[in-house]
Amino acid sequence: MPLVNLDAIAVREIFPGLRARIVHTERTSQSWVEIDAGATFPVHQHPHEQVVNLIAGTLELTVAGETHMLTPGSVFVIPPHVPHSGRAVDACRVLDVFAPVREDYR
Amino acid sequence: MPLVNLDAIAVREIFPGLRARIVHTERTSQSWVEIDAGATFPVHQHPHEQVVNLIAGTLELTVAGETHMLTPGSVFVIPPHVPHSGRAVDACRVLDVFAPVREDYR
Repeated sequence: MPLVNLDAIAVREIFPGLRARIVHTERTSQSWVEIDAGATFPVHQHPHEQVVNLIAGTLELTVAGETHMLTPGSVFVIPPHVPHSGRAVDACRVLDVFAPVREDYR
Repeated sequence: MPLVNLDAIAVREIFPGLRARIVHTERTSQSWVEIDAGATFPVHQHPHEQVVNLIAGTLELTVAGETHMLTPGSVFVIPPHVPHSGRAVDACRVLDVFAPVREDYR
């Protein structure tokens, strides 16, 4: 810190086919995520705000029971405690920004 | 909101050759930035934490008088109130995450 290279960060498999490299700051956790084509993640929720910045690929994201299709340039704001799940239509690269810090991922 | 398409957001020229599309959430401002090759931005500072996620290009970033070269995969955490400036070695795409919200950019 404060200059981090993602290649130097351990990869964490959050769900099968969904791998994250996470940088924690004072106020946020920046989670650089790769999702394999076809991989899914189940409905879950957390007390953190989550901003899904889609960098590459197509992500089907279901938030509070409503399904949205995210493509590069999509930014989705998931408020705290709102259930969400997803499926990578093709291989995805995502930057998820959590606030406050994901202490559970330290 | 909460699904935002960056194409639908007004472009703000923060400094000459540096254009931003900014999404404000409860706790952060996500600033999607394009910087022209060779463009510079002067020394400035703010009370917000800033995380510089380099998506594409090469960015020479000077923070507290020390110069760093950022390439895709670089994540740089600028603490609050720390002076910083920069120069795009070639055209850059950056996601700057500010916390708390940049009320001055609303």
